[in-house]
Amino acid sequence: MLKQDDHKHHISERFNAELESIKNHLLEMGGKVERQLNAAVAALVAGDTGEAEEIINRDHEVNQMEIRIDDECSTIIARRQPTASDLRLVMTVIKVNTDIERIGDEAAKIARQGIRLAEESASPTNFVEIRHIGSHVESMLRKALDAFARLDLDLAVEVVKEDTGVDKEYGSALRSLVTFMMEDPRDIGAILNEMWALRSLERIGDHAANIAEHVIYLVRGQDVRHQKSIQEFIDKVGER
Amino acid sequence: MLKQDDHKHHISERFNAELESIKNHLLEMGGKVERQLNAAVAALVAGDTGEAEEIINRDHEVNQMEIRIDDECSTIIARRQPTASDLRLVMTVIKVNTDIERIGDEAAKIARQGIRLAEESASPTNFVEIRHIGSHVESMLRKALDAFARLDLDLAVEVVKEDTGVDKEYGSALRSLVTFMMEDPRDIGAILNEMWALRSLERIGDHAANIAEHVIYLVRGQDVRHQKSIQEFIDKVGER
Repeated sequence: MLKQDDHKHHISERFNAELESIKNHLLEMGGKVERQLNAAVAALVAGDTGEAEEIINRDHEVNQMEIRIDDECSTIIARRQPTASDLRLVMTVIKVNTDIERIGDEAAKIARQGIRLAEESASPTNFVEIRHIGSHVESMLRKALDAFARLDLDLAVEVVKEDTGVDKEYGSALRSLVTFMMEDPRDIGAILNEMWALRSLERIGDHAANIAEHVIYLVRGQDVRHQKSIQEFIDKVGER
Repeated sequence: MLKQDDHKHHISERFNAELESIKNHLLEMGGKVERQLNAAVAALVAGDTGEAEEIINRDHEVNQMEIRIDDECSTIIARRQPTASDLRLVMTVIKVNTDIERIGDEAAKIARQGIRLAEESASPTNFVEIRHIGSHVESMLRKALDAFARLDLDLAVEVVKEDTGVDKEYGSALRSLVTFMMEDPRDIGAILNEMWALRSLERIGDHAANIAEHVIYLVRGQDVRHQKSIQEFIDKVGER
């Protein structure tokens, strides 16, 4: 009997180690994508096309990580038959994995716009909007990953709330870029490229908020994604 | 022995019925989102704010469907311990489910822009860009869902290819809207709202392409999402 218990014990230890390893791989990928994003914004602002090229080349590493994590999730489902909170963790990893990979895609797109912008004539905006929204979504992504690592509900709620702010900033950035276009139509080409980079940043904000919502689901053990009351829930947590 | 075989047979029949039911629920949700999208574009073009309100109100039904499908996937994983191609189907459903729900969100956003546009002064664009790109992404979504329903590899590849076209159309639509803005700055407000609607359409194109990539993965039994050769693969299938 003891032997069998030992055996079970070993299996559950191995199972926990596997779950832990998936979580760590996801966070590793998150860290890589964070660096890609920060580097892409910096390269765009500095007009550093060499660095931008490297960011684009590194995107396939992120893609490989996504495939590997999905494979690990499949393997753990097939072999360990997770249930309840273990299964919820695996489901969350599958979803967050997609969001992180898409953030990587957007970072590569920002690097691509950086190369185009470096080739154009100087823009009159001094990249104020990109730097501003860039640092905002960088911080959202960092917080969303921290919230996942520590299963921190409050932090996750904070990220979801911040996304509304980013959307508003994006709206006023667009308006201000249009004003620049009208002042000197020769800048339209450059400014359109900035608009594309902004769009990528705004989309990264959406993905960070998605990650945070998945964390809320994981921690609360129920689906809060679309409760009519998600805003109420967020407001309540915010008031604590 | 016969009895046990019977028993196994029953279980596997029930299992197949459950898989089939998940697939059908996903397609049902896909159909609903398709109708939401078509209605949203039509309401925007017609300036029909009543219909737009209804579309926005119906979005929560899509969200409920998403939660239910995720729950069904969790249940089938926990109870049936799917492996190999069954597991791949479940993983695909989990991923496609997210993309369909996000298309629903974007359709609701288009309806919201429709209400704003109906309240503004008439736009000079006659919504040419929105109607054009709208009908393009509507057809992409329909094809992506058909490809999933029939596991049609060629159709899925077609959708992935079309997304590049939508991105290009989106770029030139933006340029043309900027021209309108410059001709009469009083139209800027209305035209910015059109830009937001276009952005939603373009994003729906991305999601349709994501769905198609998941179908390719499901049919080919291996991950083609990020093969360096995905373009080569697509070219090859295209040449057949």
